[in-house]
Amino acid sequence: MHSQQLAIDTHRLRRLLDGINGFGFNPDTGGYNRVGYCEADMAAREWLLDQMRAAGLVTSRDGVANLFGRFGPLEGPCIMAGSHLDTVLEGGAFDGALGVAVALECVLAMRDAGLSPRLAIEVVATAEEEGRFGGMLGSQAISGALSAEWLSQAADADGVRLINAMAAQGLNAMDALQAGRTDISAFLELHVEQGPVLESRSMPVGVAHSVSGVCNLRVRLEGEANHSGTTPMDLRADAFAGLAQVGTAIPGIIAARGSENSRITIGKADLRPNFIHTIPGEAEFIVNIRDIDGAAMDGLATAVRDEVETAARANSLEAKVQEQSRIEPVHLDRGLAAMLHEEAQRLGLQALAMPSGAGHDAQTMQALCPSALIFVPSRGGISHSPREWTDWSDIEKGANLMLSALIRLSGAAG
Amino acid sequence: MHSQQLAIDTHRLRRLLDGINGFGFNPDTGGYNRVGYCEADMAAREWLLDQMRAAGLVTSRDGVANLFGRFGPLEGPCIMAGSHLDTVLEGGAFDGALGVAVALECVLAMRDAGLSPRLAIEVVATAEEEGRFGGMLGSQAISGALSAEWLSQAADADGVRLINAMAAQGLNAMDALQAGRTDISAFLELHVEQGPVLESRSMPVGVAHSVSGVCNLRVRLEGEANHSGTTPMDLRADAFAGLAQVGTAIPGIIAARGSENSRITIGKADLRPNFIHTIPGEAEFIVNIRDIDGAAMDGLATAVRDEVETAARANSLEAKVQEQSRIEPVHLDRGLAAMLHEEAQRLGLQALAMPSGAGHDAQTMQALCPSALIFVPSRGGISHSPREWTDWSDIEKGANLMLSALIRLSGAAG
Repeated sequence: MHSQQLAIDTHRLRRLLDGINGFGFNPDTGGYNRVGYCEADMAAREWLLDQMRAAGLVTSRDGVANLFGRFGPLEGPCIMAGSHLDTVLEGGAFDGALGVAVALECVLAMRDAGLSPRLAIEVVATAEEEGRFGGMLGSQAISGALSAEWLSQAADADGVRLINAMAAQGLNAMDALQAGRTDISAFLELHVEQGPVLESRSMPVGVAHSVSGVCNLRVRLEGEANHSGTTPMDLRADAFAGLAQVGTAIPGIIAARGSENSRITIGKADLRPNFIHTIPGEAEFIVNIRDIDGAAMDGLATAVRDEVETAARANSLEAKVQEQSRIEPVHLDRGLAAMLHEEAQRLGLQALAMPSGAGHDAQTMQALCPSALIFVPSRGGISHSPREWTDWSDIEKGANLMLSALIRLSGAAG
Repeated sequence: MHSQQLAIDTHRLRRLLDGINGFGFNPDTGGYNRVGYCEADMAAREWLLDQMRAAGLVTSRDGVANLFGRFGPLEGPCIMAGSHLDTVLEGGAFDGALGVAVALECVLAMRDAGLSPRLAIEVVATAEEEGRFGGMLGSQAISGALSAEWLSQAADADGVRLINAMAAQGLNAMDALQAGRTDISAFLELHVEQGPVLESRSMPVGVAHSVSGVCNLRVRLEGEANHSGTTPMDLRADAFAGLAQVGTAIPGIIAARGSENSRITIGKADLRPNFIHTIPGEAEFIVNIRDIDGAAMDGLATAVRDEVETAARANSLEAKVQEQSRIEPVHLDRGLAAMLHEEAQRLGLQALAMPSGAGHDAQTMQALCPSALIFVPSRGGISHSPREWTDWSDIEKGANLMLSALIRLSGAAG
């Protein structure tokens, strides 16, 4: 039995988040800098481990610096809840850290209320989720998804190898292969939405049913760089004209082949030579295609390839299209999502069933155990920025939904 | 009376061009580097002055290092013929230098044939036509188009001031104000087309009737940089989408408001932040608009501005459009052009009446005196490149057209 009255302590939650954010803050920009395995990231982990220990949790740290704080039975399976502690460069105050603080606050609230979980709850602060080394290292280690080959080759954008970055913090990257867990019954994560959907619908919480897959097509259109004055319009091979044609075709491609869960974005495009008076001889760009359905993603990619061919023919260009990367969509656990909607209803919260457009630890964990993802709104949809913000009234609602779910899943009783 | 048999000596012309191109050649790239007032540019001028002196011409150099070689009467008005000696960085072998060499060869051919012009012919090698300092300094000095204010402020892309670059070569920039001439009856220039029109029509020579004006509109579209996965298509303010819409509207704008002499080019475009996974929050680009008719150019610019507004509204963007620069179209002398067509017909040459899409000394000179511009074909329309090429059979035809014109205009008799 769990109490309907039990609620998290927002002041304590805020102090926890502020405590984490004492590490890596840049007063010049307002941004937070806890890039995976940097000093500030490791110092924040030390601090959090102390907090969990002081709160009476049984703490541990695995080989990749994932932190665990266990509440309840020392033996047997557990419910795991949390998120990541690392940030991007100049990131915001909420991304990752909020989910860790919320999970810990939920456990503290249960402890203070004298609730004992039948199934242990482990608060987790995962390592290197933001992909400095190209993966989601912490949750991949827990779910056993890493290989020695990948670990030995992974490097960041500056060429720093993972094994060296970890060694500098006294860690052996190969220990990641021993970090796998098989005793987790469910994983729950609360995270900021990083998009504008909840705010635009005035909804305080979302429950993700899936995480979009991503396919990046690298396109190169080659024409002929020529003088913009001396080359008549009908004798051009204008690579920019081809790019523009592909760009304007996107809404039509989505209307014909996609759904409200489809996203096609051209975020990076470079013209060459990129001079005012020269018809671009080359355009290189990435078409970023996302959908929560793998077949739909394929359909969109095919339509984009067709449009690239059409645009190339229409503008006398040579086209090269290459799939640069592909991550399959993930469907999160339906049972957990349904449970979260029930709890939201019981708490009087309007919760939106929605896809996640960004990647999260929950999608990695879903390969290991039933996993769920609660969203709270991001003002203006902004994240990975010092301007990231979530209203505390919404955080409180999301945190109380997490608390309810943890009480229910752990079978906690007073 | 002039002889129908008189023709230029292609071997000597070639040696002249090779002589000029002995200065500033980069064997690594195949490019020529005689940027205005650099050492190679000045050394080439010394060499050419020696050649003209050795040929018996009366030589002079004005305050901006324009070179003159006079053939015929020492007093009275003259016909001027030539082009520029300077190049862009890594330019081609023909641009400018060919026109100088052709003018000199024509005079040598007349001299060797024992022809005496009634009106003097001055071969000119102008300075700094390529616009290192933002103008066409040599021909502007001759036509009296410069001001002390402009001369004292002009600087190149690296911030080197014109007055310092000239001082380093022993020149006083303010002497440009004394370089104006009032004794030129006509100016004739032969230049490579730098475009594909003559080649595409298999014509050996062109006669420009006008030089296009240029208007550059700097456009900035501002939206909101957001995550490409978490931001639904209908909640975006995608600056790239606005750019693409403007780009695809160009053919329609020309069809509605332009003519075969209209050119609209987006050669330079930059997205920000230009990341694969981020919807561009900003697009900054230049719309380069050219026409031989000022009113038509205005009409095209208005249509582009309208389209920018439309694209901004359709994509929730803020638009800023600014006229960055504007050069009016120039109509070259009709009488001289008609004379060139007559001479071409007499020589059995097919000559195309055409606009010039690029700027040339002839357009500056037209403000001072009747001016004309002969084009020879550019293979593939390529110029400002080591790949620039014109077939010698075409050069010979163009040079003989110049020779006929100079004989006729100077009233040369044997």
